[in-house]
Amino acid sequence: MKLDTTPSGFALSISGRQILAHSAAAPCFFVGQGNDSIEMHRGRFAIEGRLAERCPLAHAKIDGDTIMLSAAKGQPPRLAVTLEGKALELRSLDSSVNRFWLRVMADRDEHVWGGGEQFSYFDLRGRRFPLWSSEPGVGRDKTTEITFKADAAGQAGGDYYHTNYPQPTYISSARYALHVETSAYSVLDFREGEFHEIEVWSVPESIELFAAPSFVALVETLSARFGRQPPLPEWIYNGAIIGLKDGANSFARLATMRAAGVKVSGLWCEDWVGIRPTAFGARLFWDWKANETRYPGLRQRIAELNDQGIRFLGYVNPYLCNDGVLFEEAENAGYFVKDASGQTALIDFGEFHCGTVDFTNPDAAAWFSEEIIGKRMLDYGLSGWMADFGEYLPVDVRLASGIDARLAHNLWPTLWAEVNAKAVASRGRTGEAVFFMRSGFTGVQKWCPWLWAGDQSVDFSRHDGLVTVICAALSSGLLGNAYHHSDIGGYTSLFGNLRTPELMMRWSEMAAFTPVMRSHEGNRPRDNLQLDGDPAVLEHFARMTAIYVHLSPYLRTLSLEAARRGLPIQRPLFLHHEDDRRTYGIQDCYLYGRDLLVAPVWQAAQDQRSLYLPSGTDWIHVWTGKSFAGGQEISVAAPLGRPPAFYRADSEFEALFAGLRQV
Amino acid sequence: MKLDTTPSGFALSISGRQILAHSAAAPCFFVGQGNDSIEMHRGRFAIEGRLAERCPLAHAKIDGDTIMLSAAKGQPPRLAVTLEGKALELRSLDSSVNRFWLRVMADRDEHVWGGGEQFSYFDLRGRRFPLWSSEPGVGRDKTTEITFKADAAGQAGGDYYHTNYPQPTYISSARYALHVETSAYSVLDFREGEFHEIEVWSVPESIELFAAPSFVALVETLSARFGRQPPLPEWIYNGAIIGLKDGANSFARLATMRAAGVKVSGLWCEDWVGIRPTAFGARLFWDWKANETRYPGLRQRIAELNDQGIRFLGYVNPYLCNDGVLFEEAENAGYFVKDASGQTALIDFGEFHCGTVDFTNPDAAAWFSEEIIGKRMLDYGLSGWMADFGEYLPVDVRLASGIDARLAHNLWPTLWAEVNAKAVASRGRTGEAVFFMRSGFTGVQKWCPWLWAGDQSVDFSRHDGLVTVICAALSSGLLGNAYHHSDIGGYTSLFGNLRTPELMMRWSEMAAFTPVMRSHEGNRPRDNLQLDGDPAVLEHFARMTAIYVHLSPYLRTLSLEAARRGLPIQRPLFLHHEDDRRTYGIQDCYLYGRDLLVAPVWQAAQDQRSLYLPSGTDWIHVWTGKSFAGGQEISVAAPLGRPPAFYRADSEFEALFAGLRQV
Repeated sequence: MKLDTTPSGFALSISGRQILAHSAAAPCFFVGQGNDSIEMHRGRFAIEGRLAERCPLAHAKIDGDTIMLSAAKGQPPRLAVTLEGKALELRSLDSSVNRFWLRVMADRDEHVWGGGEQFSYFDLRGRRFPLWSSEPGVGRDKTTEITFKADAAGQAGGDYYHTNYPQPTYISSARYALHVETSAYSVLDFREGEFHEIEVWSVPESIELFAAPSFVALVETLSARFGRQPPLPEWIYNGAIIGLKDGANSFARLATMRAAGVKVSGLWCEDWVGIRPTAFGARLFWDWKANETRYPGLRQRIAELNDQGIRFLGYVNPYLCNDGVLFEEAENAGYFVKDASGQTALIDFGEFHCGTVDFTNPDAAAWFSEEIIGKRMLDYGLSGWMADFGEYLPVDVRLASGIDARLAHNLWPTLWAEVNAKAVASRGRTGEAVFFMRSGFTGVQKWCPWLWAGDQSVDFSRHDGLVTVICAALSSGLLGNAYHHSDIGGYTSLFGNLRTPELMMRWSEMAAFTPVMRSHEGNRPRDNLQLDGDPAVLEHFARMTAIYVHLSPYLRTLSLEAARRGLPIQRPLFLHHEDDRRTYGIQDCYLYGRDLLVAPVWQAAQDQRSLYLPSGTDWIHVWTGKSFAGGQEISVAAPLGRPPAFYRADSEFEALFAGLRQV
Repeated sequence: MKLDTTPSGFALSISGRQILAHSAAAPCFFVGQGNDSIEMHRGRFAIEGRLAERCPLAHAKIDGDTIMLSAAKGQPPRLAVTLEGKALELRSLDSSVNRFWLRVMADRDEHVWGGGEQFSYFDLRGRRFPLWSSEPGVGRDKTTEITFKADAAGQAGGDYYHTNYPQPTYISSARYALHVETSAYSVLDFREGEFHEIEVWSVPESIELFAAPSFVALVETLSARFGRQPPLPEWIYNGAIIGLKDGANSFARLATMRAAGVKVSGLWCEDWVGIRPTAFGARLFWDWKANETRYPGLRQRIAELNDQGIRFLGYVNPYLCNDGVLFEEAENAGYFVKDASGQTALIDFGEFHCGTVDFTNPDAAAWFSEEIIGKRMLDYGLSGWMADFGEYLPVDVRLASGIDARLAHNLWPTLWAEVNAKAVASRGRTGEAVFFMRSGFTGVQKWCPWLWAGDQSVDFSRHDGLVTVICAALSSGLLGNAYHHSDIGGYTSLFGNLRTPELMMRWSEMAAFTPVMRSHEGNRPRDNLQLDGDPAVLEHFARMTAIYVHLSPYLRTLSLEAARRGLPIQRPLFLHHEDDRRTYGIQDCYLYGRDLLVAPVWQAAQDQRSLYLPSGTDWIHVWTGKSFAGGQEISVAAPLGRPPAFYRADSEFEALFAGLRQV
């Protein structure tokens, strides 16, 4: 990083790329004051900012590695910026300041990616969006009927930028990355031609900069910064994790599926804790212990499954329902987040209310890790679980550590991941027992072994369907989350939106080329098609699990590479083709490792799929063996069962890939 | 107005009411810089502001009647504020400034009204909304199916604050009014408890303040400021203006309606210029001359109507279609608004394109007045017309006067009104020939004799139906627009939304108690019920015209009062009951003059209506003669044909009102 003084200011560059250019006429730092209204209803936040001041810090005084910034010469400095290694440490010198803006130099043809897990747009240029963990919305597109109905039913429709996992970090096509170290509400604005603007509702601790000669090296660097996940457990290579929530009947259904040829690595019963019927569908009973009524003799059942090479997985989240037994224990110990009056803050989850265990209280976090996850889950025999939610912390609560809930809100997913990871580590099972999360924030990479893409609608829609999972994998993958997967068939069935056999099959086809194949019955299992509800769907799924297992030697190599270098399993095409700018905007295809290119069919009623093959190599079509030169747009037949996939002609796994034709 | 210095600033009050309180810690003036993107599509504007600076002007230096404001002591002044009579004249001292904010002191229980013609909310406290003339939207409520469909079909749904006629003027329950003299995009923010905030995308010319001991006196003062309209023409008291656009057949249909007992003052044929079929419905041919094919022998027909005491009215707007003959004449004379390349700027009106006559060019304005309105309309025999549109000036055009189109946009409705008014005056027919407009802005009061409420949907919806017309009449009326009326039955029929007999009847009932009864066939006449399409509807309408005529002595008195004092015909309840705060939020009832209280039934399937009767008098129910004490909520029977209406027990028109029972 290099700081140069200029006639009326300074310039900052990293590895030859100019990042900041400050002059009195065009300052790059701004501070100010504002207030806000942030209201939460069922994980959706109505956020409104009211700005009182935005002051360009026009005057810079440079003293060694520190820049003192003020509104004008002779005015008191309001912000100190100190170069510390590859970061700009920021210090507010004015206690009234609670708003911060930074303008970063941009090129007109620059692309930017990242922002956490983004579902709608991979290349974020041209957009301005907030970073605030929340429900992602149902429909997420104001032009669709489902979004309209979800909005009308309770402002639940969402928009393109809503995500369970935001992160104020981006990668630029100019081969640098920028991370804002803050948990405050922030906004990335990539709409302007000449600059990007970062807005933070607080003075951030620092701005970190990363540069590298290649995208691969840049991603490795970010992964080292944010933390790496352990390799996949060996048992996953046995096949898919089958999600059933049918009580004891789940075991019989699993047996039927296996008899139909489905290769299985795990049985995931989120209803292991019992259920609660609601208008949204059957919900779970949030009191985190095995429900012996719904699953009689479960420990014995788990042991029998294990003997067959199949693990049992469950479900947990950071809330405790106030009609469960754990609620009283936690409340007596003072472990819950409090409201303004000092009472346990109850959160409405839709027909039931919960306390939030206060993870800023080390005793409460340790209690959750040990008493719930350790004893009731791991010791009980679980090898994994969905660690759900994490997005619902309101801003009007009081926390044990004294941190402002506005700053704690985005931290919650990472704290929640840590609670889970420490429980797994306490039993020495890191890398062998797993959990998967939808929420996230900066640092979740270090604790959470797998992301899952949250709750898609059970359809092919552009902003809430199958295709959004690819964007989510690519954006989060660039920021150091190597493992991503999704609910096969999607989750949310509302307003008459129902799964079709075609959707189930297309989703299975994609999932076979992701690190984890996992099915889900969805929010309304009885109304919706299940994998075992249609022989053709089941047969197709069985073959996809065989494909997944066939590819396991390759996947194992990718997993070891991820642990060593931090490269995600699913990668944007540009990661290995950075000189081919035509790849920069692609978000409906991905590389599965370096050597496989996967182009899922993500629209209904398609028997062909068009895609662009990156230049620099020839590509072999998996199902025909036909070779295509890179650097061209092609169209291939894509009937059900033949998801468009290609391997590099020079791959060392060529024989394995060629073998797919026989699976 | 009184300016006091305080330890670190100043305080400004008017008639004892403190309006501004400035200190270094809490300044009330702010300036800054920003840019914007304002894109127009068919009268709907996508407006996006991007703020670079908002500087509190913390330091005030007072020199006689001038306040010099700067960011801090020792910094150069950026704004000069000079007290001139009842205004604060503003002068920017910094050419980079293009944003302005003012904080006005507020009381927590204060109510505010005005903002031009507002359709959804009369009391604007708690809201923040822009002032920019535009299409008001179809549905105007994101929770309704129609709004969703209009948005999906082209972002045409709108929101509560969209209006053809904005005006940066408000009246406070603290008995003062504030007007911002600017035509720039501005925002009124009434959300805060302690202050109101005014935002302007320019430094306004001045802030005008008005105070009075009573609301009546305040409204009189505003009317004197903005201009008054002539009294209603005598011919209007003959009955309703019947809107038909059925070519020559219109005359036969009028005869049928008259035979059914309908009292008629005018026949309004907007299709007098010929029609153009489009997907929206039959549109008119925008080339402003009588169409002899559609209306053979029209001059003769008009003369015959006049002999029967019936006037003929037409239609005009400020655009000329590029497939008409006037277009070439105007283009050759250089009368059109130009695009960036200096060519005639063509505006898309949906399947056809038009030039906009440049009213900042005095020759073009005079040409439109004389050649089109004077010769082709007034001299032809028209006694009135709808002077439609005025909201469509884009901001990327060049104007003859050199004014920035961003500043001209909101001025356009007033310029358009002036063109019409001058044409009427040129023939000595002011107050006898009339026109009615939906668009408006500051100063339209001086030129436009009647407002009409624009294009409601043909339904009872909360934000786009019958009830919105009341809010529009009350808000615009307070700002000096004495005459307001609406399309009986509404206008916009889209997405299967069709007029019902009940809607037609409820709308007729309300219109009988407004200064002008005028029907409209709507945008899709053939799909929708017309007044003469159902004998029950026609009979009901005939009776309502008789009620209107019966009330004409009272209406004439109100009209003379309006000319003399500026009081609107339709008034909020609080205007004559200012000590009864329960009236301050009422927007679904109105006073018709001082003596009648009208509570239209504005929802479907109602046979009762609840309302609040203001205190201070007894109220006599028009249809039963029953007396009710003021100061209470009551419910009365409201079957079709008996719109809830009450008169003051002490009215000098008591006999006239009592006579309504026999009509």
